[in-house]
Amino acid sequence: MRRALPPLRALPGAARPPRLPAPRGMCGRPAERSGHSALSVLPSFGFLFDIDGVLVRGRTPIPAARTAFQKLVNPQGQFLVPVVFVTNAGNCLRQDKAEQLSHLLGVPISQDQVMMSHSPLRMFKRYHEKCVLVSGQGPLLDIAQDLGFCQPITIDTLREKRPLLDAVDHDRRPKVLSPSAVELPKIEAVVLFGEPVRWETSLQLIIDVLLTRGYPGNPYEQESYPHIPVLACNMDLMWVAEAQSPRFGHGTFMVCLENIYKKITGKELKYEALMGKPSRLTYQYAEHLIRAQALQRSWEQPIHTLYAVGDNLMTDVYGANLYDRYLRESCGLGLQARLPARGRGPATLPQDLEVALGWQKELAAAAAARCRSVLVCTGVYSPDGAAPAARSAFHGHRDFSCDPALLRPHHVVPDVDAAVDLVFQLENFAPR
Amino acid sequence: MRRALPPLRALPGAARPPRLPAPRGMCGRPAERSGHSALSVLPSFGFLFDIDGVLVRGRTPIPAARTAFQKLVNPQGQFLVPVVFVTNAGNCLRQDKAEQLSHLLGVPISQDQVMMSHSPLRMFKRYHEKCVLVSGQGPLLDIAQDLGFCQPITIDTLREKRPLLDAVDHDRRPKVLSPSAVELPKIEAVVLFGEPVRWETSLQLIIDVLLTRGYPGNPYEQESYPHIPVLACNMDLMWVAEAQSPRFGHGTFMVCLENIYKKITGKELKYEALMGKPSRLTYQYAEHLIRAQALQRSWEQPIHTLYAVGDNLMTDVYGANLYDRYLRESCGLGLQARLPARGRGPATLPQDLEVALGWQKELAAAAAARCRSVLVCTGVYSPDGAAPAARSAFHGHRDFSCDPALLRPHHVVPDVDAAVDLVFQLENFAPR
Repeated sequence: MRRALPPLRALPGAARPPRLPAPRGMCGRPAERSGHSALSVLPSFGFLFDIDGVLVRGRTPIPAARTAFQKLVNPQGQFLVPVVFVTNAGNCLRQDKAEQLSHLLGVPISQDQVMMSHSPLRMFKRYHEKCVLVSGQGPLLDIAQDLGFCQPITIDTLREKRPLLDAVDHDRRPKVLSPSAVELPKIEAVVLFGEPVRWETSLQLIIDVLLTRGYPGNPYEQESYPHIPVLACNMDLMWVAEAQSPRFGHGTFMVCLENIYKKITGKELKYEALMGKPSRLTYQYAEHLIRAQALQRSWEQPIHTLYAVGDNLMTDVYGANLYDRYLRESCGLGLQARLPARGRGPATLPQDLEVALGWQKELAAAAAARCRSVLVCTGVYSPDGAAPAARSAFHGHRDFSCDPALLRPHHVVPDVDAAVDLVFQLENFAPR
Repeated sequence: MRRALPPLRALPGAARPPRLPAPRGMCGRPAERSGHSALSVLPSFGFLFDIDGVLVRGRTPIPAARTAFQKLVNPQGQFLVPVVFVTNAGNCLRQDKAEQLSHLLGVPISQDQVMMSHSPLRMFKRYHEKCVLVSGQGPLLDIAQDLGFCQPITIDTLREKRPLLDAVDHDRRPKVLSPSAVELPKIEAVVLFGEPVRWETSLQLIIDVLLTRGYPGNPYEQESYPHIPVLACNMDLMWVAEAQSPRFGHGTFMVCLENIYKKITGKELKYEALMGKPSRLTYQYAEHLIRAQALQRSWEQPIHTLYAVGDNLMTDVYGANLYDRYLRESCGLGLQARLPARGRGPATLPQDLEVALGWQKELAAAAAARCRSVLVCTGVYSPDGAAPAARSAFHGHRDFSCDPALLRPHHVVPDVDAAVDLVFQLENFAPR
């Protein structure tokens, strides 16, 4: 059953956000703590922090981030609450991202606190032994191998092996035409890690792979539908860097790919899986990491509330609210209701159901009661801009419905420091 | 009134194409000559040759081309019939293209025989004094200035002046963030010459220009619609190079631009003008060049038939048939009926009507009676592939309707040499 989300609680710029309504019991777990007079010293909540637009803009740190993180650690640099960084970025290893964050925030961050958009690919074991084409930037082969893929092939390598395919850039066309084609194994899936460079090259080669059933260089087949599986991480249409308007993200690249495919074939490009916010898989995995931290620190109180702090209505807010709806709808129901149903969308992985089952069983058994969305105004979202409902365009991915209720954040605050203050207040949290 | 085109006459691979039906009088001009017993020595017809897929595949000459052109010139290398090369390419000056063709075909080609997709931009004088953003490859500034533009600015220059805008490629982001913005004049139009390289950069900067009313670097405006004018040359979705399947053309880039614009704004990108085949403007200009050649050679017979030889159903065949329909529909009608009507499509240039009027008046007064499409099988079209009607996808531009009648060529021949033989036979042409 669909339930309307509560209306916007705090307006941007408000010095002190108003309190949430009186607490109510949920799913047999502890009642909400806001409004309680007793102060908590152990956390029963955790933070999911977005990075771009919350902690940094491009490479520039957002000043509120350091202030906020000073409140989240004790003098020894240990976190006082479980914290996971949930980023849709996919262009580096999580160890590298953890190091960047440690430097940026001035507190030590471990790789177990970092979740990249591609992290759930570890579960797609049926592709791990196969030859997969990977698209994106950064150390793609390292990332793919770290996730378990044994035979990844990059766009650049494919381009070298099939030099006639990439014909857009006149200066990069081969000077000598070699008639002998180098042998290549069949490509059995395409993995889109993130936005690549030279989009014309990636778009052309991916289309070639899809229209030849994995044998790029061969003539296009009329009957190549359904195409070989495409798994995509990070659907962000835009993100915020130093420029005054949002910049293209991987979602924009996907718009190109989907529409070229449709123009050429007349058919829809289909995704075997879509990962990264706002997909549910992402939040389940993030919650798993939160719980692992609590366990490691011997915080025995159950984690009943997740606070997802982000700047993007379509990823952070929509995703947190979608997960919140899922938690509420499955609240009190059996495990079966928490498991993915066949055909409920790309993130339900019909072919990987058995693999997913084992993984989700564990998570579902320990699921939180709710996930609250906290929107900051330091990134994509601007309180001066048009309200999402007033906009005519839906910036979410093609395969996610535009549900206006899911675009309404539980809280709006000026920045991440205000988000931490708000949550501590709501939770009556006073760490020693 | 719409008339159905005659059915396919000659099948690919046929050694000797069957004759056309018995001639009939048209518009008071000479009756069709096929079937006549007297041989002509002076041409009353002209050729419009496509280049890619007809004369070359990528950089590789198609053998039939040299043979064909030996039949088209006398021993002194002078053409025996008017010939114009009508290419949708737009990445070089016509002088350079003429030199390439001379070398390729072994006969001297003058620049007056070459029509590029951007040639009609000479008529858009209202933009010539303004600052326009140009996108494409090759000597863009030379091309733009040769066409009359006084203040063209390239994507690369804009990128240098506004270094924060192009954020996709991590390695090309500016190392030092300079706070001072370099002054730039307002950009008043975008001219798309052809497919650029690094599509992400061009797409991002063009979108920025459109969403800021010509002041890229400023925040996006909610009310930036209708956007500043966009003029596009060459709508080819794909073209044929050495690879076994067609490669992306400028039309594919335009698919990306149109769909990103729509995804971000919820509105349609609009073109002030679309040039290149299959637009009518292109064929009118080509006919003008044909007529100029005949005049120069003192061939006094009117040119009543144009034979458009190409490999692409959506550009060469559709365009020739569309022009043929236009010639037939306006046949016997006054000049007014041959002039562009407001609102009949992007190539009718409502704002430039007065300019266009003067230009088209001259052409319309001397228009040919018909334009016959001749499809060759050395390029995009493959007789083994699915018939266009059987395909579910329409490969023409978004703004052109999918009229199956316009996709049926008047003739299909194996290659350009067979095309020349066929036309000589149809016209009973026997040059001395």
